[in-house]
Amino acid sequence: MIRLDRSFVRKVNAMNVKLINPFINATINVLETMAFVKVDAGRPYVKTDNLAVGDVTGILGLTGVANGTIAVTFEEKCILTIVSNMFGEAMESLNDEIADAVGELTNMISGQARRELEQVGKVFKAAIPSVVIGRNHSIRHYSDGPKIAIPFSTEGGKFTIEVCFER
Amino acid sequence: MIRLDRSFVRKVNAMNVKLINPFINATINVLETMAFVKVDAGRPYVKTDNLAVGDVTGILGLTGVANGTIAVTFEEKCILTIVSNMFGEAMESLNDEIADAVGELTNMISGQARRELEQVGKVFKAAIPSVVIGRNHSIRHYSDGPKIAIPFSTEGGKFTIEVCFER
Repeated sequence: MIRLDRSFVRKVNAMNVKLINPFINATINVLETMAFVKVDAGRPYVKTDNLAVGDVTGILGLTGVANGTIAVTFEEKCILTIVSNMFGEAMESLNDEIADAVGELTNMISGQARRELEQVGKVFKAAIPSVVIGRNHSIRHYSDGPKIAIPFSTEGGKFTIEVCFER
Repeated sequence: MIRLDRSFVRKVNAMNVKLINPFINATINVLETMAFVKVDAGRPYVKTDNLAVGDVTGILGLTGVANGTIAVTFEEKCILTIVSNMFGEAMESLNDEIADAVGELTNMISGQARRELEQVGKVFKAAIPSVVIGRNHSIRHYSDGPKIAIPFSTEGGKFTIEVCFER
């Protein structure tokens, strides 16, 4: 479990803080078990700009006790390494196979996080993932709720999870 | 109402066909009333490639009687014209104001379509919109359901709505 500092907690409401750790746990677990990739979670922060740090993003809408969205944004080298590990063969470009793998990883991260949240009575439903491929694209979540970003690093490179729920 | 030809109807199941017209009606209505832009809907088709024809996309997840996602993808010139009309001043680049306008348009199209669907007993909940900005990005919906694309044209350029629901 990642410890969150007070200045961070002040910026987001209590509900949002409780939603974060299940997504961190699920991300680490999914990548370690599906892709055998060691994942280090950095300190979550409230996003003030809108530039996703990456070239491929899985986006998944959530509804339920709160409406929101999660986005998982990878640098090209990072996702190529992850998917190469998943498939056991070297992937060299951002193609449809990579997009499908990102869709599946997004589904699995959301699924595990939702199961953990359900155990504490917070029930969410998931829409279906959409995957964006494009160099230096930016993502903006259209909501008045805080946009929480969690940076991750792997041997292959970095990726970021963004979680945004409406107030 | 757009008439759908038989070969199209064969490719998607009956449920998906019934879901399409409310999105077409909502799109025309929202753009004509909010941006005073005349919109012509083209013939819907089942998407076989994954290239969104555009530079800005609003993505919104839906849950309910079926889980799905809608994506509204604009060419740069098209969305600049639309938002210039909405704000009554010339917009010249893809900035945060454009992203927020796309988020709001996506919300309004989804909201109107959902109200029409609710009147026939199909209740959906909407997540929150995410907006992607990036030249020539491609979007892939991760689902085994058909990906239905509806092309629209305006004086300022083209945009496409994609609707995908799981089977």
